[in-house]
Amino acid sequence: MNDKKTVVTISREFGSGGRHIGELLAEELGIGFYGRVLIEIAAEKSGLAPEFIKETEKSAAGGYLCDVSAGFGYSSTAYCAPSVQDQVFLTQSRVIREIAERESCVIVGRCADYILRELPDVLHVFVYGDIEKRTERAISAYNVPSEKALEEVKKRDTARAKQYKYYTNHIWGDMHNYHICINSGLIGIENSVKLLRIAIESRQ
Amino acid sequence: MNDKKTVVTISREFGSGGRHIGELLAEELGIGFYGRVLIEIAAEKSGLAPEFIKETEKSAAGGYLCDVSAGFGYSSTAYCAPSVQDQVFLTQSRVIREIAERESCVIVGRCADYILRELPDVLHVFVYGDIEKRTERAISAYNVPSEKALEEVKKRDTARAKQYKYYTNHIWGDMHNYHICINSGLIGIENSVKLLRIAIESRQ
Repeated sequence: MNDKKTVVTISREFGSGGRHIGELLAEELGIGFYGRVLIEIAAEKSGLAPEFIKETEKSAAGGYLCDVSAGFGYSSTAYCAPSVQDQVFLTQSRVIREIAERESCVIVGRCADYILRELPDVLHVFVYGDIEKRTERAISAYNVPSEKALEEVKKRDTARAKQYKYYTNHIWGDMHNYHICINSGLIGIENSVKLLRIAIESRQ
Repeated sequence: MNDKKTVVTISREFGSGGRHIGELLAEELGIGFYGRVLIEIAAEKSGLAPEFIKETEKSAAGGYLCDVSAGFGYSSTAYCAPSVQDQVFLTQSRVIREIAERESCVIVGRCADYILRELPDVLHVFVYGDIEKRTERAISAYNVPSEKALEEVKKRDTARAKQYKYYTNHIWGDMHNYHICINSGLIGIENSVKLLRIAIESRQ
């Protein structure tokens, strides 16, 4: 493995601009950015339609709680039969591990911090912000209708928290799972990228 | 008010090295550092013994819940009679506001983020770390006996959380109260200082 490889995972509250920060960071560093494209890759590998995977990601996960890092089958507690959502998640997890072991990259969402928790030298980041600023961004950057924006922000955060809890058994947004947490609404997008570049240097 | 003033508050989990990060940051920037010295200043202003204030700070606060930003007296809910602990806290709060309005500084602990929440251009920081690393630091840097270190770390964190909740009615360590949260155990002390210098620039 190349010691100089840079792998960054970014988890983020909805509307915080975490994905945009990840894109800018990857661009500045000249490394791969993996966000929604993971849906296409997982679709290709699993034979499921990309649109189905996208909808699965948006809603909270259901089904049996298993240790995804060990795969499915007989766990210490019970036999777990993977649901279609679980299969999607497992496929994405395998893809994320393959990418992170192969190349420098920025990966946004998809519980990547948990999936790569044992890979050394990965920088795990959480991007968050006040709900008012995130609601504004949902309207301006994601074209969410203003009358539904606050509700949408809360709904998407809840779905992310439920999915994270289901697949990792950890609390989404617990700062102890990350090296650094940035309030993008107060720090700003460009400055968040600057901070992450310094944080990356500190890991190398 | 001088627009170029730099005011940083650092809240921190016990054993995270947050105080040391604050000292180094203040030294590099050539600005005042206010940590334990606030005890001396508050003692001088209140007529209470510094040792008494120190002990009061270590233990969790008790008494009536009031809005400390408004001072004591008739609140919207009830009449609040300040306890001695409350008087100490109020005196320190006044001192913190006076300092932050007067000069560039780094202030560690003492709910300074809450006390200065309405002062513009202040950078609010939370420093945290895995409990194992913080326990090691408690032993090596604060000379806590190793057999008591884990218990001491938990006890001091609990006291800080209770005091913060009591005086601010907010949750201690909720990332939304801060601009940036740094896992000092993973990022390192020196690199945390570097990150904070970039974060300060972003506020100016």
